[in-house]
Amino acid sequence: MRARVYVTLKPSVFDPQGRVVADALVTLGYQDVQDVRQGKFFEVELSATDVATAKARVTEMADKLLANPVIESYRVEVLP
Amino acid sequence: MRARVYVTLKPSVFDPQGRVVADALVTLGYQDVQDVRQGKFFEVELSATDVATAKARVTEMADKLLANPVIESYRVEVLP
Repeated sequence: MRARVYVTLKPSVFDPQGRVVADALVTLGYQDVQDVRQGKFFEVELSATDVATAKARVTEMADKLLANPVIESYRVEVLP
Repeated sequence: MRARVYVTLKPSVFDPQGRVVADALVTLGYQDVQDVRQGKFFEVELSATDVATAKARVTEMADKLLANPVIESYRVEVLP
């Protein structure tokens, strides 16, 4: 079973990497870009076979290792 | 209008970062983790107002700047 964890900086946290990407896009001629925020995601391959268990396990992993809950928020999605 | 670009290493490209995360999860007691692949995503805020234009613009940005088409693949999603 496959799950995805999307991790982003919380909206109140400044994202310098996204800022640089936004500036680079404007420099490249994409004047319509207003803002860019960058995040990361993890695709986790699990041996669990039911969706509820997989979601619970992966949420725990995100809390413990994949995201820093002080400055980041995350979303877990289990693929069918 | 907001669009998201998800960038991942192509399946044939070795992902050492994902490998380390998978090993760390197993060490933390998640023996059911078989594999992890890590990717990144960009949330782009655009002034374009129709979905087709936004998608075309952002796909062009992904090709030019956000992804390295030699080793990475990407997926563009425009949020309503």
